[in-house]
Amino acid sequence: MAGAGRFFEDFVVGDVIRHATPRTVTVGDVALNQALYGNRFVVQSSDAFAQAVGYPRSPVDDLIAFHVVFGKTVPDVSLNAFANLGYAAGRFLAPVFPGDTLVSTSEVIGVRPTSKGDAGVVWVRTRGARADGAPVLEYVRWVLVRVQGGRPLPEPVVPTLPSAVDPSELGGACPRIDRAAWDDVQAGGARRFDDYAVGEKIDHVDGMTIEEAEHQLATRLWQNTARVHFDGYAQKNSKLGRRLVYGGHVISLARSLSFNGLENAFHIAGVNGGRHVAPIFAGDTLYAWSEIVDKQPLPGRDDVGALRVRVTGLKDCPPTDFPRATPDGKDHPAVVLDLDLWLLIPR
Amino acid sequence: MAGAGRFFEDFVVGDVIRHATPRTVTVGDVALNQALYGNRFVVQSSDAFAQAVGYPRSPVDDLIAFHVVFGKTVPDVSLNAFANLGYAAGRFLAPVFPGDTLVSTSEVIGVRPTSKGDAGVVWVRTRGARADGAPVLEYVRWVLVRVQGGRPLPEPVVPTLPSAVDPSELGGACPRIDRAAWDDVQAGGARRFDDYAVGEKIDHVDGMTIEEAEHQLATRLWQNTARVHFDGYAQKNSKLGRRLVYGGHVISLARSLSFNGLENAFHIAGVNGGRHVAPIFAGDTLYAWSEIVDKQPLPGRDDVGALRVRVTGLKDCPPTDFPRATPDGKDHPAVVLDLDLWLLIPR
Amino acid sequence: MAGAGRFFEDFVVGDVIRHATPRTVTVGDVALNQALYGNRFVVQSSDAFAQAVGYPRSPVDDLIAFHVVFGKTVPDVSLNAFANLGYAAGRFLAPVFPGDTLVSTSEVIGVRPTSKGDAGVVWVRTRGARADGAPVLEYVRWVLVRVQGGRPLPEPVVPTLPSAVDPSELGGACPRIDRAAWDDVQAGGARRFDDYAVGEKIDHVDGMTIEEAEHQLATRLWQNTARVHFDGYAQKNSKLGRRLVYGGHVISLARSLSFNGLENAFHIAGVNGGRHVAPIFAGDTLYAWSEIVDKQPLPGRDDVGALRVRVTGLKDCPPTDFPRATPDGKDHPAVVLDLDLWLLIPR
Repeated sequence: MAGAGRFFEDFVVGDVIRHATPRTVTVGDVALNQALYGNRFVVQSSDAFAQAVGYPRSPVDDLIAFHVVFGKTVPDVSLNAFANLGYAAGRFLAPVFPGDTLVSTSEVIGVRPTSKGDAGVVWVRTRGARADGAPVLEYVRWVLVRVQGGRPLPEPVVPTLPSAVDPSELGGACPRIDRAAWDDVQAGGARRFDDYAVGEKIDHVDGMTIEEAEHQLATRLWQNTARVHFDGYAQKNSKLGRRLVYGGHVISLARSLSFNGLENAFHIAGVNGGRHVAPIFAGDTLYAWSEIVDKQPLPGRDDVGALRVRVTGLKDCPPTDFPRATPDGKDHPAVVLDLDLWLLIPR
Repeated sequence: MAGAGRFFEDFVVGDVIRHATPRTVTVGDVALNQALYGNRFVVQSSDAFAQAVGYPRSPVDDLIAFHVVFGKTVPDVSLNAFANLGYAAGRFLAPVFPGDTLVSTSEVIGVRPTSKGDAGVVWVRTRGARADGAPVLEYVRWVLVRVQGGRPLPEPVVPTLPSAVDPSELGGACPRIDRAAWDDVQAGGARRFDDYAVGEKIDHVDGMTIEEAEHQLATRLWQNTARVHFDGYAQKNSKLGRRLVYGGHVISLARSLSFNGLENAFHIAGVNGGRHVAPIFAGDTLYAWSEIVDKQPLPGRDDVGALRVRVTGLKDCPPTDFPRATPDGKDHPAVVLDLDLWLLIPR
Repeated sequence: MAGAGRFFEDFVVGDVIRHATPRTVTVGDVALNQALYGNRFVVQSSDAFAQAVGYPRSPVDDLIAFHVVFGKTVPDVSLNAFANLGYAAGRFLAPVFPGDTLVSTSEVIGVRPTSKGDAGVVWVRTRGARADGAPVLEYVRWVLVRVQGGRPLPEPVVPTLPSAVDPSELGGACPRIDRAAWDDVQAGGARRFDDYAVGEKIDHVDGMTIEEAEHQLATRLWQNTARVHFDGYAQKNSKLGRRLVYGGHVISLARSLSFNGLENAFHIAGVNGGRHVAPIFAGDTLYAWSEIVDKQPLPGRDDVGALRVRVTGLKDCPPTDFPRATPDGKDHPAVVLDLDLWLLIPR
């Protein structure tokens, strides 16, 4: 049967999977991304601003590159996945511009059958590159994949993942920024690297209600083929009972909401970790808050520094009290997303 | 708190507010605008037609420029507004093309506390310009803004606004049009300036039902941050009980509907006045009709003339009988929009 | 009344109708088409791939050209239609690229009043061309149009239509493809012309649930003015009781779904026939399956061959058992679309 996807037994550590459907990113994608998420980070919004601070033109939103690269992996990696368990070691390596064509490969770096034996965890390191081979991003993702059965299961191989990306690895992602040309008023906020304190919590204020049409448009735009997102007929009879919103849609919404209070943090340079804590559905309203958990200079760079920001996405729960965990250390019931990022911000 | 917006007391007459987030307009925006509103005015639809009549290529829909310029004002002007009361003195000063970056500033030109003292009317003159400073549009808007309290309220300053834009001020908005090259068949209608009579009423026939996903896409596309439009959770507990459709969305729908009967009126040159008479919500169907209330030549121009058109937007009410006011002079209950425009049309 | 459309009596065999609103296609349309349908055919997705195999850049999805050309015909041909009865003799004559402006004309080639006399079948041959006159596609469509009354009805003229487009007529639609440069992994499938057998049935696996916002966005994007698609208020009182999804939306969804199993069939070259068997509405989930009903070399071409593929669209019915007709020869109740295409595929 066409499009049936890989099962757990099909993943062999060391295999490199070249994913189908290279895709040229355009200003059409930029506009749709804008309409879906409402971003306001100025470097990605204004060619004139981008040029003033050191780019040849506006790069596309970092998450456009992520979604395009991610989407390609779905038919090969997660079509038979029960769950998308986590992300780590993510780095954005070069800006992507309209006209760039992105290709995607994944290396299998770990497999571990569950004790029950009906599924297994698969770790892949996915790399996105331009058509000329220049890398644009990479990240590790692990998913719980169905066992097809009838074949022996592999011995476990569990990769060692860093708890955070080293700041020395973040610098390639943006050109040298001309701080003098950075107009805080146009950017929408006056706070720069030195103005944030570790431990600070930021209420991003706004909420966004998700509609079925919106997340379906996103899923198809990014060529994500996971049918849980758009086959409402099949989903009616599933455990969830309805369509599930693509996790990356939630990440993009949270990133956009995080503009309030992080106005100058113009660039995602690293993904230290990330979890989709709970599913989210059409009709739910996403809120977000952030905690500054670290801040580091970039070696050899006096133009930008890196804020390590833990972004918490909440369902139907304004973030006034910054909920994340319950007293007994479990996830707060409203939490749907827990994302640990390195953001670049002018000094 | 980030993104909390200005209160009534924060507006000082004479202040000029530079708004954040300049934005480059692209063909991606043009396509989304098309998908959201269904425009058919040919100059904006066909590069070949636009070039034949005198443009370097298709300008973007005038209302794209309006929405982009307007969206930027929301975080500074109307985040704490109870209501958007009206528009006047609007002029489109130059065509906008894909690739242009738009910036936005607002000058506070009036303030008047309400008698109850919990809110006040703020008048601003908003100017949109290209990144090189060339103006593209300006308009006056007044909104009812919440009083924060604890500070003295200012003395009233009420600006004098013209009842209509003078036709001599409309000419810069389009290049000289080559009337001989204007193909009425391609444009979709044979009627030109001389064919309309003052007093004539036009039924625009079609209706468009609004979906939540649609107006949310629009609101975010135009970087409008008014949370009443996309935070369904908070709106459930509001007076309205649900999300409110962005007023500009209604204006664009009405403009698109008005193609039937105004096919050659290719350009909005002025906004004499405008009111969002009543709110509109997802599930409502918008209809529109127009009355020709004046017509004027443009001084020194024999290529185009100006029709003054009053566009009435109606909710769930086909415009067969041209409803606008009740016998006792109140707004007809179906009216949601009352817009007084100068439209340019070939002679 | 503006925008009232033609009635049956207005169609005269031999008349050529030049349709309004030429439209420039852009990468914005490409992105929206992607978001609406989720296409993965690689030639249209990647400029780099397209260039490698022989195009100057990615052509737009063939159905973008179809929708744009079709949309223009609606105000003149089918605004008063009860039903869109069928398509035949469709040929895609040249690739369309972003920046091309498309114009549309229709020649009336047949009329036949129904026995009841309140409606009649009208056949038109619609031709799409670039602004410079170069043809890009043509097809015959027939619709059932309302009789206005009060005028004599014409004598029937029924055109002879081919049961299929001759493969010798399909070659102009794509440049010579460099088969050696065609990367099956990037394309997402290894099967080429020789790997398909006549009689083979392909389950396309996935289903897509349609939302009101989605088909409305599509209808307006393609400037289709048939009000049954977007006027929910009027439709509530219609026989259907709700908005009808634009038939072309279903065709594009089916084409996109058909990627699973037809990955290398990159180009629609001909439409031998097509019927919208039953209406489809928001909330319905579309599935599709295909049967290879013929395969033919293209005269003088060793790079690509033509697969004749009958695509069946199903509503709320996964295509596991390949339903199409009932035992007594009627349409299976789940069938909504029956489309007979020539697809080009590398040899």
